[in-house]
Amino acid sequence: MILYASPGGCSQASHIALVEAGIPYTLVKVGRDKKTDDGRDFNTLNPKGYTPALELDDGTVLTESLVILSYIADMSGRLLAKNGHERWRALEILEFMTTEVHGAFRALFRTDSAEADKDKSRTILAGHFGLLNGVRGERAFLVGEQVTIADTYLFVMLSWAAMMGIALPERLAAYAARMRQMPSVTHALVAEGLA
Amino acid sequence: MILYASPGGCSQASHIALVEAGIPYTLVKVGRDKKTDDGRDFNTLNPKGYTPALELDDGTVLTESLVILSYIADMSGRLLAKNGHERWRALEILEFMTTEVHGAFRALFRTDSAEADKDKSRTILAGHFGLLNGVRGERAFLVGEQVTIADTYLFVMLSWAAMMGIALPERLAAYAARMRQMPSVTHALVAEGLA
Ligand SMILES: N[C@@H](CCC(=O)N[C@@H](CS)C(=O)NCC(=O)O)C(=O)O
Ligand SMILES: N[C@@H](CCC(=O)N[C@@H](CS)C(=O)NCC(=O)O)C(=O)O
Repeated sequence: MILYASPGGCSQASHIALVEAGIPYTLVKVGRDKKTDDGRDFNTLNPKGYTPALELDDGTVLTESLVILSYIADMSGRLLAKNGHERWRALEILEFMTTEVHGAFRALFRTDSAEADKDKSRTILAGHFGLLNGVRGERAFLVGEQVTIADTYLFVMLSWAAMMGIALPERLAAYAARMRQMPSVTHALVAEGLA
Repeated sequence: MILYASPGGCSQASHIALVEAGIPYTLVKVGRDKKTDDGRDFNTLNPKGYTPALELDDGTVLTESLVILSYIADMSGRLLAKNGHERWRALEILEFMTTEVHGAFRALFRTDSAEADKDKSRTILAGHFGLLNGVRGERAFLVGEQVTIADTYLFVMLSWAAMMGIALPERLAAYAARMRQMPSVTHALVAEGLA
């Protein structure tokens, strides 16, 4: 299995999940120029041009964060409840992040955004992180006492928030600091050249 | 089970899926003022303020289109392959639509978008519909010969494209016209007051 990832991108969630699940994989880094670190053109692998992309052993390429994360969870039998409310809750909050939170970050990452649009995004994101903080409550992880695929994605969103100077609720900031100490997270950050 | 939907909104995909799956449900319409058609404040039901929201018989409220659609599929045993590549392909293309396609429509729906941003969105959407057209190929439905939850969502995106004057590949336009004749789609359109 090969994970195509952009260092620091949302693909980091899939990267952390693979490590945490204990699934053997090869990491291939994709640069801004869409070249892989082994010299290939990433666009031929994923015409959508973005990471994460997961190449399965039969050559199939799977894209889209929520789907790759669900695949990793199903394959490993870990990181997501097999059924019941906890499963739906984890997927629901993950989908909230891939649509609304990731979406609101776009204007901040684009170089050509108007300042007014960036301000609007910052306000929206502060609201979203408030909501995530409330959903988590006093739990160790986002949807319970065990780490799930939703936590791996939340960690990346919190890193982006810190990078963009978005103030976080205290409990979420503490959670991010604790996540950063998890061996799987540290491993992924080092492998992506970020620690 | 109660589905909270905004006529013509992305909640229509969940609406069509419920009808197509043959699951008994009550439809509650939500207006732009966030009042339900039975006089309640929708924001107290879903603090995120958007539809679809699915209220289960135990009172749990589930949100996020991909998750509600997956829940309907799992509950009915229809509209999504139980496992294997067809399942992942359907979820992958659905997630592409909830993140990238829905996201690109946002600028077109906002009243305060700059013309340049709207043009950019139209170009992006034309590319996305080209991609969806290619993924479908010559198949009857988006990922195979059977209708899946991905088709219900694609139908809504194609309706939006028509409304926004985005030119569609011929095969996709024909597909939209054919979907519109499906009894489940006609039923949902009538119930939403759109046909
Ligand atoms: N819908 C995709 C979006 C993936 C995405 O936007 N990836 C970004 C990194 S966070 C990327 O690769 N951007 C580079 C590009 O699009 O050129 C998902 O949820 O996985
Ligand atoms: N992430 C949500 C987005 C839902 C959404 O944007 N719903 C729109 C209709 S397409 C809505 O209710 N908008 C009204 C509002 O946000 O005030 C999903 O995928 O279900």
